[in-house]
Amino acid sequence: MKRDKIKQLFAKKEATKATVYGWVRTNRAQSQFGFLNVNDGSTILNLQVVYDPEHIKNFDEVSKFRVGMSVMVEGDIILTPDAKQPLEMHATKVVMLGDCPENYPIQPKRHTPEFLREYAHLRARTNKFNAVFRIRSVAAMAIHSYFQSNGYLYVHTPLITCADCEGSDQMFKVTTFDMNNLPKGDDKKVDFSKDLFGKQAFITGSGQLQGETFAMAFSDIYTFGPTFRTENSNTKTHANEFWMIEPEMAFCDLQGLMDIEEEMLKYVVKYVLKECSDEIAFCDQFIEKGLKKRLEDLVSSSFVRITHHDCIDLLKKANVKWEFEPSYDDDIAKEHERYITEHFNGPVFITDWPKDIKAWYMKVNPDNKTVAAVDLVVPGSGELMGGSQREENLDTLLKRMEELHVDKEPIDWYLDTRRYGGNIHSGFGMGFERLVMYLTGVDNIRDVLPYPRTPKNCEY
Amino acid sequence: MKRDKIKQLFAKKEATKATVYGWVRTNRAQSQFGFLNVNDGSTILNLQVVYDPEHIKNFDEVSKFRVGMSVMVEGDIILTPDAKQPLEMHATKVVMLGDCPENYPIQPKRHTPEFLREYAHLRARTNKFNAVFRIRSVAAMAIHSYFQSNGYLYVHTPLITCADCEGSDQMFKVTTFDMNNLPKGDDKKVDFSKDLFGKQAFITGSGQLQGETFAMAFSDIYTFGPTFRTENSNTKTHANEFWMIEPEMAFCDLQGLMDIEEEMLKYVVKYVLKECSDEIAFCDQFIEKGLKKRLEDLVSSSFVRITHHDCIDLLKKANVKWEFEPSYDDDIAKEHERYITEHFNGPVFITDWPKDIKAWYMKVNPDNKTVAAVDLVVPGSGELMGGSQREENLDTLLKRMEELHVDKEPIDWYLDTRRYGGNIHSGFGMGFERLVMYLTGVDNIRDVLPYPRTPKNCEY
Repeated sequence: MKRDKIKQLFAKKEATKATVYGWVRTNRAQSQFGFLNVNDGSTILNLQVVYDPEHIKNFDEVSKFRVGMSVMVEGDIILTPDAKQPLEMHATKVVMLGDCPENYPIQPKRHTPEFLREYAHLRARTNKFNAVFRIRSVAAMAIHSYFQSNGYLYVHTPLITCADCEGSDQMFKVTTFDMNNLPKGDDKKVDFSKDLFGKQAFITGSGQLQGETFAMAFSDIYTFGPTFRTENSNTKTHANEFWMIEPEMAFCDLQGLMDIEEEMLKYVVKYVLKECSDEIAFCDQFIEKGLKKRLEDLVSSSFVRITHHDCIDLLKKANVKWEFEPSYDDDIAKEHERYITEHFNGPVFITDWPKDIKAWYMKVNPDNKTVAAVDLVVPGSGELMGGSQREENLDTLLKRMEELHVDKEPIDWYLDTRRYGGNIHSGFGMGFERLVMYLTGVDNIRDVLPYPRTPKNCEY
Repeated sequence: MKRDKIKQLFAKKEATKATVYGWVRTNRAQSQFGFLNVNDGSTILNLQVVYDPEHIKNFDEVSKFRVGMSVMVEGDIILTPDAKQPLEMHATKVVMLGDCPENYPIQPKRHTPEFLREYAHLRARTNKFNAVFRIRSVAAMAIHSYFQSNGYLYVHTPLITCADCEGSDQMFKVTTFDMNNLPKGDDKKVDFSKDLFGKQAFITGSGQLQGETFAMAFSDIYTFGPTFRTENSNTKTHANEFWMIEPEMAFCDLQGLMDIEEEMLKYVVKYVLKECSDEIAFCDQFIEKGLKKRLEDLVSSSFVRITHHDCIDLLKKANVKWEFEPSYDDDIAKEHERYITEHFNGPVFITDWPKDIKAWYMKVNPDNKTVAAVDLVVPGSGELMGGSQREENLDTLLKRMEELHVDKEPIDWYLDTRRYGGNIHSGFGMGFERLVMYLTGVDNIRDVLPYPRTPKNCEY
């Protein structure tokens, strides 16, 4: 079955015969000819198909084709350099493959994002979601391409875990039990020894610890997989299921980490600008004016590096009335991130954070007050990546774990990374949806996930 | 920080200065010189580092370096075309970065797979697992590369689902509840309306249905993500968490599906043979003799296509005493798969299966007895992919669902793929671990998963 893809026809721009399978986006029929706009999902661009009773035998039938029908069109590709679109098809054959009734919810008009969320299984058939999910797919490929071409190992760290070192409050519990009929022990508590794994199991929110063990064998590794949080928060940036990338590099300090983050982000943006130029142009026109320039600027910019301390200095000196007063001991708020990225007019690495607000595994700096952590904040989207040099000294690490009441026993295997051939190493995490939002200008995480899972919302 | 990768040094074969970071695999010290074998995980090959007291100042210290230590070595790469290895380094500087005590479990000798499963967090530092996980990573990239270069959309279908159309018996339940303190309703049953999603949630075992909705927008899509089964079976080929690839193609029938499966598999094998030649050579030598030839033969072979009916004929005619008698109405057993692949000396597509043993969404053939399903069986590993043309006719599909007691209500959205612009479409699933076992010769799924999850086994 010969199937020409519309993307290829536009790429080649050749006067040729073609056979295209796709869906009717619009149909404008006049008495002597008509125009079908057909999309096959290979690109956001539609193929304009001109049909007339001289060249197709079912003109009257085709004139009545409805939006959403699937069709096969055969004909000649004609270059039209003076028209709005560079080419069109003059049909010699048009066949309906699948009907579509008039009550089809996706009509050729603007639908609100809220309306389309109610039709998540159909919204990919709109221009906007066609563009967004294509960019999402290509961005995922760009990430794999960056890491693999630089020799990184892709590791599939496990999702099910029994070590609840992150605090099981934030993790989903998983079980094979009938929850209406749980086996109980003598102490009236659930007898997890009877569950599939012989103990209580969770879905993890990070593959970092397992990733580190692989970095101690392969030097450079990355994960890229789904991640889960039980947060009961309904914001534009939170979902209970999302995808995350977690690279981990042996023999790499904080400066090296920032070099990699910067190089990777620029690579991904460049890749998407090249492979999805039509989709980016669409997002630039209909989602965020100036998107394309913002992305191009990023590629040619040099990311600023500033310590948390200097960042707070800058915020304090700013002539701004803050909702949250900047503090040397505290996190920085969204309003601060916005100010900082506007001040430097580009992405900013904020380094050396107060240790009390950061995680136990981060490298304690010589000042004993800060850790070698870094957040990358970008214009428009705020924090895009968070990472750190890891504490490679076993004694210091154990002390930190004690201070922060992290249970040593369930992750003793992890501590072996410091016992056997340990070294200075670093890693970061990037929420993939946040990247896709940054690349498309979409401002709600529900609109960059194929089927978002948020509190009270688990349809499809 | 300049870091040369051993893989690059071997690829370039240049006499140059180099700085390598890695781990000591062996150290043979004599009175006037010594040899360190260093591995950095970028390749299975070690860099042989020659050191002597004339060129490094800490010769006595280095002489005592233990296996497992992490080191930095600097020196001159010398080409040695007449030696076993094509090059070696003459060290000018050797520095210990991380110590490793003598009780380090991974010593330069053969460890059994069972022993190494007890040290899953360290086993990636052995030659075998270095090779296996590198091949796994490159095979994942090959899959992305095949589909993306052919215009497929990578879709992240959700893992958490509330539609238990597969039968919730085989799915893990997920909850945010404290399982020792479940909220109950008036009927004494768990009140899932109080859980995060407002109803009972599961982890799905397939993204196919959601994938189909995206194929109806993008024509060609694939998923690649983790999958979960609650099966309580301890075999060499079952794990409770594994990765799966599920492509779905609109405007594609069973023949087209087989073309794609064959092309994809050959592409992946070719890609791995090229990118992992040293790792494949290692597996060929130490895991499965003849592996490389088997893979090369696959690339140049033409896959046989045979119906289930003809396959049973062949088995019945064979002069073999079967443990399981071949039957026209039944599945084929492992022993049958083995016979068939040996008979045809290569991969075999078995098509048109009895409908009673296949899933409800598969296209019913005109004979009304079989469905347009296909399994690909390969020499050595048995079934590698399973797929089908999907039933595109809504009425036939609804009838099948009724016959098989599939609840229509929770997947009404899925049925819209047949209501609005439906068409002949097909898809398949491939267990990624099964592919990795096929590519490496490893015969136990526990040894191709970084941290396997099997019944009673959820460590790390």
